[in-house]
Amino acid sequence: MDKQVVGILGGGQLGRMLVESANRLNITTKILDEGLSSAKQINASTEHVDGSFKDLASIRKLAKDCDVLTVEIEHVDVSALETVQKETGIKIYPVPETIRLIQDKFLQKKHLMQHGIDVVESIDLKANTKEEVLAIGQKFGFPMMLKSRTLAYDGRGNYVIKTEDNIEEALEFLKDRPLYVEKWCPFTNELAVMVVRSIEGEVFSYPIVETVHKDNICHTVYVPAPVSQTVIGKAELLARNAIKSFPGCGIFGVEMFLLPSGDILINEIAPRPHNSGHYTIDACVTSQFEAHIRAITNLPLPKDFTKLTNPSINAIMLNVLGDDEKDKELEMCKRAIETPNATVYLYGKSSRPKRKMGHINIIDSSLSNCKEKLNYIYKNEKLQLSSIVEPMDKPLVSIIMGSDSDLPVMSVGANILKKFGVPFELTIVSAHRTPIRMQKFAFEAQARGIKCIIAGAGGAAHLPGMVAAMTSLPVIGVPVKGSTLDGVDSLHSIVQMPRGIPVATVAINNSTNAALLAVRILGVGNETWLNKMTQYMNDMENEVLGKADRLETIGYEKYLEK
Amino acid sequence: MDKQVVGILGGGQLGRMLVESANRLNITTKILDEGLSSAKQINASTEHVDGSFKDLASIRKLAKDCDVLTVEIEHVDVSALETVQKETGIKIYPVPETIRLIQDKFLQKKHLMQHGIDVVESIDLKANTKEEVLAIGQKFGFPMMLKSRTLAYDGRGNYVIKTEDNIEEALEFLKDRPLYVEKWCPFTNELAVMVVRSIEGEVFSYPIVETVHKDNICHTVYVPAPVSQTVIGKAELLARNAIKSFPGCGIFGVEMFLLPSGDILINEIAPRPHNSGHYTIDACVTSQFEAHIRAITNLPLPKDFTKLTNPSINAIMLNVLGDDEKDKELEMCKRAIETPNATVYLYGKSSRPKRKMGHINIIDSSLSNCKEKLNYIYKNEKLQLSSIVEPMDKPLVSIIMGSDSDLPVMSVGANILKKFGVPFELTIVSAHRTPIRMQKFAFEAQARGIKCIIAGAGGAAHLPGMVAAMTSLPVIGVPVKGSTLDGVDSLHSIVQMPRGIPVATVAINNSTNAALLAVRILGVGNETWLNKMTQYMNDMENEVLGKADRLETIGYEKYLEK
Repeated sequence: MDKQVVGILGGGQLGRMLVESANRLNITTKILDEGLSSAKQINASTEHVDGSFKDLASIRKLAKDCDVLTVEIEHVDVSALETVQKETGIKIYPVPETIRLIQDKFLQKKHLMQHGIDVVESIDLKANTKEEVLAIGQKFGFPMMLKSRTLAYDGRGNYVIKTEDNIEEALEFLKDRPLYVEKWCPFTNELAVMVVRSIEGEVFSYPIVETVHKDNICHTVYVPAPVSQTVIGKAELLARNAIKSFPGCGIFGVEMFLLPSGDILINEIAPRPHNSGHYTIDACVTSQFEAHIRAITNLPLPKDFTKLTNPSINAIMLNVLGDDEKDKELEMCKRAIETPNATVYLYGKSSRPKRKMGHINIIDSSLSNCKEKLNYIYKNEKLQLSSIVEPMDKPLVSIIMGSDSDLPVMSVGANILKKFGVPFELTIVSAHRTPIRMQKFAFEAQARGIKCIIAGAGGAAHLPGMVAAMTSLPVIGVPVKGSTLDGVDSLHSIVQMPRGIPVATVAINNSTNAALLAVRILGVGNETWLNKMTQYMNDMENEVLGKADRLETIGYEKYLEK
Repeated sequence: MDKQVVGILGGGQLGRMLVESANRLNITTKILDEGLSSAKQINASTEHVDGSFKDLASIRKLAKDCDVLTVEIEHVDVSALETVQKETGIKIYPVPETIRLIQDKFLQKKHLMQHGIDVVESIDLKANTKEEVLAIGQKFGFPMMLKSRTLAYDGRGNYVIKTEDNIEEALEFLKDRPLYVEKWCPFTNELAVMVVRSIEGEVFSYPIVETVHKDNICHTVYVPAPVSQTVIGKAELLARNAIKSFPGCGIFGVEMFLLPSGDILINEIAPRPHNSGHYTIDACVTSQFEAHIRAITNLPLPKDFTKLTNPSINAIMLNVLGDDEKDKELEMCKRAIETPNATVYLYGKSSRPKRKMGHINIIDSSLSNCKEKLNYIYKNEKLQLSSIVEPMDKPLVSIIMGSDSDLPVMSVGANILKKFGVPFELTIVSAHRTPIRMQKFAFEAQARGIKCIIAGAGGAAHLPGMVAAMTSLPVIGVPVKGSTLDGVDSLHSIVQMPRGIPVATVAINNSTNAALLAVRILGVGNETWLNKMTQYMNDMENEVLGKADRLETIGYEKYLEK
């Protein structure tokens, strides 16, 4: 595809997945790492360099015959990179300056703050003394985090200072390292996002995900993050602005904290593919690995390449960590391989406790189904997938009525939805008595994931039509029969809408048909509902045929007696 | 994942993609082929065998330390495989017996016929004489095909005998080969399908695709094949039955002819991954390559692993063939890389005219968008993707009416659908005058891809309700006003349906609202329609606000004068 040769510092799993993407594009890669590392295993080149990515001579050797260097780990020797760049003019992405900023977590935070990006408040230690930490403690309060500025990952390099009494042991634990203190951040969720920066400085973000850590190591990633659209929007903006502040190009992993207030802070940034982006291999148009290769070789990044392949899917990524008992983690992989639409990626590494051995991507059209699969794969819980693929957590249909006096009529429809397993909500919204509530309801329904609204009303029945006037969703109207006029007043109020705003009207008091119509409408988005409807209609037919049979068998007089 | 070591005879692109899948599962592979072939490039093993897959000694060497052998090409030495199997007891999938049957195309056909599978009629030549061929010509008629029984692929080994006068040149062209004559088969389309057979003999089929050949080499593959559900069903059954007839396990490519009569014949079978299945890498839950690895190592093949990742996507696979000018085919690949949701796979082979250098998978939610992308990639035509992602070729909404006298009312709705860009069909279906036609219409609508039906009727308006009784799709009823009763007769006939069968009723004569409701309903499956509806409602609001402004400005008296 491209004649450029890419040299990669580091040959772990991230390098391996970069190599896989490059292989597909006939882009030549060379790896600098020791031995037959994960990445080298899938590239039969004889040009790999056996050595350390912290060693100038090895980096020099790698750079020979390469057009661009990149890293799969930020703990490289930046000065060596700069030396080699000066000597040869080779392109290096991420640029050494960015790697230097990022590999020192305190410099990274300072840089972000200077660019107006919200981060957790931090103060660096000048001499790693108890007095310094105590002074910070008086400012920040306890608990607070003592952190190593460099070489910290997967929780290594962090120490929680619970009270003043812990300060000495914390300093002892992290002694001889450059340190800083971080204010305690009582976040509710950890979010992350992969952001690609092109050589021209354009940034493209993948979906916002939620990461869940166990013993400080990434355990699972939920895609998209199950948080509100507002939070998603804020997180995207924050992460994109953060990545705009770094020169150079390539992919970046951005980890964030979501606070109880809804505010979001950047936790830290990785200038390379990231564990929280492994799901992109199966769930997105272009994987984080191919995106990185494209960005650093200046190949095109076309429209929507970071998008989910299908906006209605959910994904969970589960890390495969080495078990305490060698190779026992493969049992989990075997369960994954039995699971519909779960894909296993192993990295060719030998089993060691807590080592990242591989990952599993789980895809389904609902988060609850993904979780079911996760429970089977991770905990060996029985897999009982619902045949309905929509999220059962969120209502798809909203039943509203003008008054609780409509409930006896409307509840019959609710029971039908229950029978079909359609997730729904039911409440009172009155056009005439709660007009503001009605407006809010209509305006927000679509964003809440509602697909169809059933509105029941009697008399001068305005509710269905007014709601239809303020949403683009299909609205089904149920005329409820009042004490006069036999319901014809409601029927005409609902059905005789002016051109422009349709209400799907059903028979007077017939909320059953409203619910059945809602199921048919959901079928446009998901055939499962149509199949269930076909089954329902078959059952109905059989029931009538049974009655006919009985009527013919016992005769109409006996039948009437029953 | 699995401790079995898989030896692969052949190291071309099919072997390469098998190795990629095995790498992801930590399954060790060893390749038998000459040099640093495509497959060896992405496996840094030192255990590969440099030699020919037709050579006993090399196969013996490959089998050493392997648990199972497989092939990426059927032109291997079957006797050698059998010898090695006898010597070592090694598992070989596909089983040698199957490879032998398949590598001789005439034996393959005989085998299929013996198992009741429809194939093109063929007769083998005993002595390759003109007289033999002439006798067959008198039976089959001209033109007919002279074919080599063995070592024929990509059209090499075929010769069309147009008339008696061609016989000698045909025999000369294919001289010294075992030959057979095939009756001329005037097919309308070529179909293909990948079928996986498990060790237990269960068969699983991927989607039926259409293959298009150019100069006898596979050019493009269309997924799913744009043919009727009946043809899809027949083709699946035929292919599955064919593969059931072969012992052993693994993946098979089945090529078929669709005849003008709608009948389907098997053309030929490949006992390995196949060019027509490359789209599975991006479009299906599990790729043909991983499926083969799983089948031959007896790993699980879970529910739906052969399905499209999303039932509403379409895919086109385009082969990248070496250009007459070396490397010029990369220009096409560059355009692919610029194209949203197109993925390039190159095989690490050096450019030679007509050589299979790679392939490109194009995905979109409509066939027409896929074709647009194909035209850009292949022919460098300007890319102008429609914003509507549903296939524009197939109607999504069906407008029916009981009589042409309803057309003036119903055509207003049709114009609305046109304005929104909704593909629709419009016809007359009368409940009372064409009851059988109505039944056929209702029964077939869903399978034809219709998502929503609009039915208009007047008087004792039965059409909407009767259609709703025979389909699971949502049906919108438009009461058409007749000469008496002001349309209330139609309204009540349509809206007052019994419990169980809903009709979404709109106002009398208001086909506008029926069409707008249909657009809202389509929005459940595709948000684009909801966005268009929001735009429409905004425009409507602005129009009224404009009128209000004018009314306030010029006063009601002047306004009335206009």
